[in-house]
Amino acid sequence: MAKTRAGIINVTGYAGVELARLLVQHPEVELTSVTGRSAAGQKLNAFFPHLTNIGLTIENKLGDVDFVFSAMPHKDSAPEIIPLLERGIKVVDISADFRLRNPAAYPEWYQFTHPAPQLLKEAVYGLPELYSKKIAIARLIANPGCYPTSAILALAPAIKKEIIEPNIIIDSKSGISGAGRSLSLKVHFSEANEDVTAYSLEGHRHFPEITQELTLLNPKKPPAVTFVPHLIPMTRGILTTAYATLLPGKIATGKDGEKQLQEIYADFYKAAPFVKVVSFPPHTKYTWGNNDCYIYPTIDHRTGRLIVVSCIDNLVKGAAGQAVQNMNLMLGLPETTGLQALAVFP
Amino acid sequence: MAKTRAGIINVTGYAGVELARLLVQHPEVELTSVTGRSAAGQKLNAFFPHLTNIGLTIENKLGDVDFVFSAMPHKDSAPEIIPLLERGIKVVDISADFRLRNPAAYPEWYQFTHPAPQLLKEAVYGLPELYSKKIAIARLIANPGCYPTSAILALAPAIKKEIIEPNIIIDSKSGISGAGRSLSLKVHFSEANEDVTAYSLEGHRHFPEITQELTLLNPKKPPAVTFVPHLIPMTRGILTTAYATLLPGKIATGKDGEKQLQEIYADFYKAAPFVKVVSFPPHTKYTWGNNDCYIYPTIDHRTGRLIVVSCIDNLVKGAAGQAVQNMNLMLGLPETTGLQALAVFP
Amino acid sequence: MAKTRAGIINVTGYAGVELARLLVQHPEVELTSVTGRSAAGQKLNAFFPHLTNIGLTIENKLGDVDFVFSAMPHKDSAPEIIPLLERGIKVVDISADFRLRNPAAYPEWYQFTHPAPQLLKEAVYGLPELYSKKIAIARLIANPGCYPTSAILALAPAIKKEIIEPNIIIDSKSGISGAGRSLSLKVHFSEANEDVTAYSLEGHRHFPEITQELTLLNPKKPPAVTFVPHLIPMTRGILTTAYATLLPGKIATGKDGEKQLQEIYADFYKAAPFVKVVSFPPHTKYTWGNNDCYIYPTIDHRTGRLIVVSCIDNLVKGAAGQAVQNMNLMLGLPETTGLQALAVFP
Amino acid sequence: MAKTRAGIINVTGYAGVELARLLVQHPEVELTSVTGRSAAGQKLNAFFPHLTNIGLTIENKLGDVDFVFSAMPHKDSAPEIIPLLERGIKVVDISADFRLRNPAAYPEWYQFTHPAPQLLKEAVYGLPELYSKKIAIARLIANPGCYPTSAILALAPAIKKEIIEPNIIIDSKSGISGAGRSLSLKVHFSEANEDVTAYSLEGHRHFPEITQELTLLNPKKPPAVTFVPHLIPMTRGILTTAYATLLPGKIATGKDGEKQLQEIYADFYKAAPFVKVVSFPPHTKYTWGNNDCYIYPTIDHRTGRLIVVSCIDNLVKGAAGQAVQNMNLMLGLPETTGLQALAVFP
Repeated sequence: MAKTRAGIINVTGYAGVELARLLVQHPEVELTSVTGRSAAGQKLNAFFPHLTNIGLTIENKLGDVDFVFSAMPHKDSAPEIIPLLERGIKVVDISADFRLRNPAAYPEWYQFTHPAPQLLKEAVYGLPELYSKKIAIARLIANPGCYPTSAILALAPAIKKEIIEPNIIIDSKSGISGAGRSLSLKVHFSEANEDVTAYSLEGHRHFPEITQELTLLNPKKPPAVTFVPHLIPMTRGILTTAYATLLPGKIATGKDGEKQLQEIYADFYKAAPFVKVVSFPPHTKYTWGNNDCYIYPTIDHRTGRLIVVSCIDNLVKGAAGQAVQNMNLMLGLPETTGLQALAVFP
Repeated sequence: MAKTRAGIINVTGYAGVELARLLVQHPEVELTSVTGRSAAGQKLNAFFPHLTNIGLTIENKLGDVDFVFSAMPHKDSAPEIIPLLERGIKVVDISADFRLRNPAAYPEWYQFTHPAPQLLKEAVYGLPELYSKKIAIARLIANPGCYPTSAILALAPAIKKEIIEPNIIIDSKSGISGAGRSLSLKVHFSEANEDVTAYSLEGHRHFPEITQELTLLNPKKPPAVTFVPHLIPMTRGILTTAYATLLPGKIATGKDGEKQLQEIYADFYKAAPFVKVVSFPPHTKYTWGNNDCYIYPTIDHRTGRLIVVSCIDNLVKGAAGQAVQNMNLMLGLPETTGLQALAVFP
Repeated sequence: MAKTRAGIINVTGYAGVELARLLVQHPEVELTSVTGRSAAGQKLNAFFPHLTNIGLTIENKLGDVDFVFSAMPHKDSAPEIIPLLERGIKVVDISADFRLRNPAAYPEWYQFTHPAPQLLKEAVYGLPELYSKKIAIARLIANPGCYPTSAILALAPAIKKEIIEPNIIIDSKSGISGAGRSLSLKVHFSEANEDVTAYSLEGHRHFPEITQELTLLNPKKPPAVTFVPHLIPMTRGILTTAYATLLPGKIATGKDGEKQLQEIYADFYKAAPFVKVVSFPPHTKYTWGNNDCYIYPTIDHRTGRLIVVSCIDNLVKGAAGQAVQNMNLMLGLPETTGLQALAVFP
Repeated sequence: MAKTRAGIINVTGYAGVELARLLVQHPEVELTSVTGRSAAGQKLNAFFPHLTNIGLTIENKLGDVDFVFSAMPHKDSAPEIIPLLERGIKVVDISADFRLRNPAAYPEWYQFTHPAPQLLKEAVYGLPELYSKKIAIARLIANPGCYPTSAILALAPAIKKEIIEPNIIIDSKSGISGAGRSLSLKVHFSEANEDVTAYSLEGHRHFPEITQELTLLNPKKPPAVTFVPHLIPMTRGILTTAYATLLPGKIATGKDGEKQLQEIYADFYKAAPFVKVVSFPPHTKYTWGNNDCYIYPTIDHRTGRLIVVSCIDNLVKGAAGQAVQNMNLMLGLPETTGLQALAVFP
């Protein structure tokens, strides 16, 4: 059977090049076309010398493909995607352009008016652990942001099983590749190395996405979310620590409660091949280069609070790997196809 | 006037060597004696080759000194200190041995029975921003832990001014020197680099210290604290992000509230030369090698929560620098003597 | 056809766990048995939590296998291997125990008397780019050291083609995982981070190995090699910069000489799938997690010197990947089987 | 006595801000004026928030000062300096604009025609370990480059004492702050972290400077220098490893030779307060934030080669610290004034 011909719009950023890595190694897909704005005309392996064995040239416009990933920045992605959908091509959009259901959120959070609000209803939020059935039949997937992936997976079982109050604090620590390949002092080596900082305390763009999805998990009790992202001096990885008050009477006291919590989480993710519910604090290093999400739910018995720690590789489960996972579902392939690489450790 | 002759017990760890750095550069003090267990007999500058110009030999027992810093590990520090006090020598203890007022806390949190519980009442918790007057007349200072310093300074104004509910979450991110110079896989370069992890979720030893001090700030409303420390891949620095719900009616809404909050904090620390209350998220890099503590208090208007970010160098304001600040007060010197170095940036 | 059952002796170090990663993902091999000294009895995925999906238990002694990799330290490896060979099992030894042909080199460089000097003649030095035919029919492979791999591949064409004088300087820069998983201050995070140092200037153990192999390439002109290794603050990767004086009249002047040099190198490695001869300075990052070796030969026209820069991942091409490459040849498989992963970038 | 009023032209780069740090802490100098191009009008402590306590505003043009440091980029520095000299103000130029004696070197290496070739004869190369007397009476100092400082100090005794042949290889490893504060992918965190690369193999701009100075040390035997710089993933520090063949009969064999070499170096630098000749491989970490240069000369007895390892902090001894050392000499102050800070370790 012929392989699916896949294309990447804007291969030149970190999500794009990570997609290229995964697709070139995918057994059921052939990466046949890649675009890049300023780099058009160059060989892909001249632009990224580590991709030695890939013969593709970066194009201005996608060639003939069956499936498309857009790794364009927000606002620029939707206009690339709309004509593809009209031509019957399925698309996974790595940008934020189809993640928020409320069109009014775009001017507020992303400073542009959405060009196709009707598609916001149709697009499926591509978190397979929650929406695998919808994803399988979708033609347009809004691939989740990196922080939202780590936060939603950490909290979904607790919200869905109604064991916590709606007051939630999400404190995330991200490696610096999450800020992309665009140059700025913030990610200049000498400034970012040996440093940690909190940022976007007035409201990060992933906030409405997190809130939207946590609300959908239990619309009767919309959560009051505080989300603070931090940049830490490493290349890949997000560790999210989430805090919420346990509802009285839901979880046993002492070790029994911890066991019960583990069971709730393990059960919630029993069909999710990439989620590892563990009973110890995980390291982002366990996910280096792979699509896993480690989740450690535990209880602060002194205060009756739930604490959940989650770890992902922001460029894999937080971007390109999740995009391929979505594609697998959309193509009727096993969810893990092409995504079974072990973490590169240490 | 003759300089004060200072000694360091256990110079061979990171707090000890940082004390040596600060004392050698201190204009009113002469470092005349240092001890170290396994290293006794070696020249200090053979053990630490970067201390080229210091001629001291590491001894088994302190020589004749006027003032002592103990950088021994907990449990081993108290037995060194007790005879010194009896001989009338003032001591700053960098270990935890005199930080907790309740003797019963030692078996619980540190697995030993305290050898001198009466001294727990006498010892002054050496956070000069709260206790400078007591420190000035003390003979025994319990130098605060690194995490507690960052957490208590972040929260003290809010608790003292009663603007928050007692439900507090403290999420701290520490550089790896905080784990000391003892070898373990946890701080092995290849395991700690490109990694972040949460640890001690069941209860870190700095938890009772933080709780004790926050409670003392408003004993009528003891706080319910959750504290989660994280290790991040850098050498120095702690960034603490603290969260609490604002009490209704205490702080104005919108920008006015932020301004009011800034004023509360700036006023609280108006006499504290090392605390910088700022209106933007600080970087730990601003404190690299110096005794400053940057504090950024702000409001999550969506949820009515206070968020405070604080940054220190864990080995300076979080250990040796604070110890020297305490010594300055105890010797009647200006608080900033010998501590005015600017951060080494970048 | 049944897969080859492979075993790893001493899976608990970095070479061992990297072998596990590669073998688990290898299509023609099944990893069926692993040993580890202190860790025997533990599940492999308890010892290395990132290996979630591997069900093996660490054993005291290898089970029934068809092929063995030894990742024991030197001196302890040979005694494990000798009985396996007697049972007809082929072995790739990652330690140094069979790398040196002269038995007298072992007491001098490794402080032990070799237990089976006759095997030193039989063992094949497992650098497939030089010895693929011998490797294919060997039963015992001495897998090269990480520094020697980077140095020999950088210099082999120049020596073999007799374009340089025998005076050679090899300046290597290694990531810290090359020092292994054993604890020491040298690789303690806070000491190794933000630092670079040269070491073993009196003679590193890889020196006799490099010299032996470079001499074999042109025994009439044994080279006078100076080799200085350096530790730099990153986890993986070795970059070697090698210097030698070009013999007069061998290489054209100016750009023509550079082109000629490129051709000599490209031709030498035309059958080597993992060697990439490039015309720009390569980055170790191009090899992160894969088996490639980038080589950049160039000319310092001012002095008539050859400069060659090579890059590898010390744990892959410098250890476990090369071992698998050797196994592939020994099993009659295509050399690249199971080794085609792209670098994880960035 | 009134303090010398010092000014910094272009305080906004790393050399500039490091100068600010050192001058603010200097007991005999007052930093009274700083300029910066795009940042003019901002408060210095708004531009660099860690400089909290400095009240200066970044200006377009220097105010009234007695002494000036120029931290402008090359080509732009000379035009700033020339009018200052005409007004009788002494200047230390951190750029390359007065380092090369041959005006023709500027178009070749820096792509501009020198505006004041007559000043190239007058300017003194500001390496106090070689030229302290000339510096003391100069009005214009060309402050050495970071790589040249590490290389020249490593080799000067060997060249001056005529113990080596003129064939010299200099392999330098630099932290990333050496590349400055200008943005580029080369110093983008995610690209530079976990990476090492060689660069400028066709000829780095510090090459003519190194060659000029090494030649001046023994003009009868001009050296044939190969210089290859490397970028390694840390913020500060340069380690240079230099190689040369020992002349026969000059140095004893065995341990005696090593001792003799140590003596030659120690003697050469006996009046140099910042040079530490050591008998073990030094770490760049020993110089973090201070003005020291560690030098370890040793012998590769197998080949009769001299190997010298030197370590500096590229922003201190390699730039701003050396500039202050020069100023001290020019003002008749003790050479070490304001430069006695110990390394911040770890």
